[in-house]
Amino acid sequence: MSNKPLVGNCIIGQSGGPSSVINASAYGVIKTALESEFIPVVYGANHGIRGVLDDRLMIMNEEDPEELARMLYTPSSLLGSCRYKIADPDADDTDFKRILEIFQKYDVRYFFYNGGNDSMDTCNKISKYMAKVGYECRVFGVPKTIDNDLFGTDHCPGFASAAKYIATSFMEVSRDCHVYDTGMITIIECMGRHAGWLTAAAGLASLSGDGPDFIYLPEVDFDMDSFLKDVSECYARKKNCIVAVSEGIHYADGSFVAEAKTSGTDGFGHAQLGGLASRLANVVKAATGAKVRGIELSLLQRCAAHVASGTDIEESFNSGKVAVESALAGLTDKMVGFQCDRGPEGYKCNYVLFDLANVANFEKKVPVEWINETHNGVTQDFIDYCLPLIAGETGMVKENGLPRFAKLKKVFAE
Amino acid sequence: MSNKPLVGNCIIGQSGGPSSVINASAYGVIKTALESEFIPVVYGANHGIRGVLDDRLMIMNEEDPEELARMLYTPSSLLGSCRYKIADPDADDTDFKRILEIFQKYDVRYFFYNGGNDSMDTCNKISKYMAKVGYECRVFGVPKTIDNDLFGTDHCPGFASAAKYIATSFMEVSRDCHVYDTGMITIIECMGRHAGWLTAAAGLASLSGDGPDFIYLPEVDFDMDSFLKDVSECYARKKNCIVAVSEGIHYADGSFVAEAKTSGTDGFGHAQLGGLASRLANVVKAATGAKVRGIELSLLQRCAAHVASGTDIEESFNSGKVAVESALAGLTDKMVGFQCDRGPEGYKCNYVLFDLANVANFEKKVPVEWINETHNGVTQDFIDYCLPLIAGETGMVKENGLPRFAKLKKVFAE
Repeated sequence: MSNKPLVGNCIIGQSGGPSSVINASAYGVIKTALESEFIPVVYGANHGIRGVLDDRLMIMNEEDPEELARMLYTPSSLLGSCRYKIADPDADDTDFKRILEIFQKYDVRYFFYNGGNDSMDTCNKISKYMAKVGYECRVFGVPKTIDNDLFGTDHCPGFASAAKYIATSFMEVSRDCHVYDTGMITIIECMGRHAGWLTAAAGLASLSGDGPDFIYLPEVDFDMDSFLKDVSECYARKKNCIVAVSEGIHYADGSFVAEAKTSGTDGFGHAQLGGLASRLANVVKAATGAKVRGIELSLLQRCAAHVASGTDIEESFNSGKVAVESALAGLTDKMVGFQCDRGPEGYKCNYVLFDLANVANFEKKVPVEWINETHNGVTQDFIDYCLPLIAGETGMVKENGLPRFAKLKKVFAE
Repeated sequence: MSNKPLVGNCIIGQSGGPSSVINASAYGVIKTALESEFIPVVYGANHGIRGVLDDRLMIMNEEDPEELARMLYTPSSLLGSCRYKIADPDADDTDFKRILEIFQKYDVRYFFYNGGNDSMDTCNKISKYMAKVGYECRVFGVPKTIDNDLFGTDHCPGFASAAKYIATSFMEVSRDCHVYDTGMITIIECMGRHAGWLTAAAGLASLSGDGPDFIYLPEVDFDMDSFLKDVSECYARKKNCIVAVSEGIHYADGSFVAEAKTSGTDGFGHAQLGGLASRLANVVKAATGAKVRGIELSLLQRCAAHVASGTDIEESFNSGKVAVESALAGLTDKMVGFQCDRGPEGYKCNYVLFDLANVANFEKKVPVEWINETHNGVTQDFIDYCLPLIAGETGMVKENGLPRFAKLKKVFAE
């Protein structure tokens, strides 16, 4: 494969659950690609790989640069996302033939896919298929996931902004829950099916004394009796208790505490969880007789761009930029990731490349050493890890006191 | 009663549900009172009128002025709140005798009470009682309620910040709900037992095209069949539907749609609502077969100081300031309120005084003319009313990327 810049067009697609900064990454790709002399046309796939399969490509060159720049501060996937699980090409290469057809039709030589674990898998399969059929094309994964569970990288774009929203909300709700002299127990549910990073972020609120009393993560088994003992004792002592729980907490037998509340699954066959906070609230109410409130942060935590981390925005943009620069330099089949220094000289983020094959379909969890011995809180190591990531504020512009998000013309090819 | 400034101490108390800016109002009182030569000591009642009854008064003169200034950006009731319903003095004057005792003990000649309808009622009763027993004391209500339901005033401090949070969240969640090409229905529940102001504020998001498709308020009767027809038709047309519902929506017979979910009541005997969003989500799911998500904004909407309205903060502070200035000028038995101009020269807020007897225990609802004919949305008149209120941003200082809230030393008298 050539190390010289390849002349040809590019496609950027977004996949999986959105985040507050996924568009900052996409903008990093789009802006850098638009500025390259080797990439005449930058296409945005409408709804990820589905947009490629369905020949729905938007010409980014047609967009107003000022609107594109607003992507830095616009949450969710502006190009549209999908949860389409691509087949194994050895078992069924229908989709891959179609992708090749589209790549040939539009002379696509660069493909950037912006998403989480499953998206990196898609990316890897496309890369391998193109190599196999001898179609020269450079394929890069641009990471995104609030879940922070991608293998290899220090952290994932999107995580820090959600973490900042969660920590801020815990601080605010904690103030609210302490105003009365009558007792109250509050249970707040954060996202995280298998990895507890987001729930752990509630612990950042403890820096100000406004944090949760307990944090329960899916990395360790949940025990209802220990939980009730924790909460009851805290409530007896303080007449107040605030708890952070991950949606994915499970008993020792692996069954989800939240399970049987909903029976749906998402497109990848994952059980669709939810309702855990109110379920636990009912259990606690019955056990303590206290006033108990369950709060689910739900979608709010993954789209709260108004309180995004400035560091996250910058790193997300740069991960898209580095992907294009690396592809132009002749690399392929990689995901951009971060290697970070947190030494005495402060925080520094270095951009590095990981083999797609290594990141796809592995989940990185909160290290058990960062969970306290009683399995109901996080250690200072986690705080030290997380704190630099949430630093800095968004540059979001407001109109009429409300966010001014990017609006695309969406000019489709053909 | 004298028109000369009365020399004596003052008490400021906070009551009822907190808001993002209730401390801005209290700070308006505290700062102005501390600066007055006629008020030697400014006491903060710990947990509202309960703090007076229990002789738990905090000396505000002992606090660091820099920390007090942070009250502008600190949510919830920093002095502590209560939901204590004071008796009618003609029926039982025990509490009033005790309040008089405390007023005499601490030479209290100014009493400021920062809260909603019930608090204005408490305020009014204290004022009447003190007049009856001939204890010279100036009593002022400083309004606070995210519900925006206080009679007389154009709007209430606290409403705009909650409205701004709600509109911002609808914009963000709307972006999130539109990322997939598969269908989705989202039902978002806002606070508002009898008045739909907060839920109506979701309509502000429509300015950017990111608003809800339908808004259901408690000012008009809710009809489940019409609701299901609205949502089903919208979903059939767009494969997407976003709905804002007030927690207090009720059927024509007056029964709450959310009722029977929880059996508790708050301290004033109001039914404690909640769980409406998930209840409606289940009904819609059964009727449409669509993927449906219910989201409850819960406490988040009343404590989200990080996205408070700059206008709200300023007006809240001024309402406390005007209360003290008016009391010093010899007035009593009043609530500070707003009379606003929204003419061609822009928005202007004038501070006016209302008789406590007139504001206590009346609820101001969204005018029916501001609700559309099909009872599932708001009109431009509501938007024009609301828009200037959410203008401007908070001056909140952050530390480590998180809010730096006020911390009080809480030096108690005695």
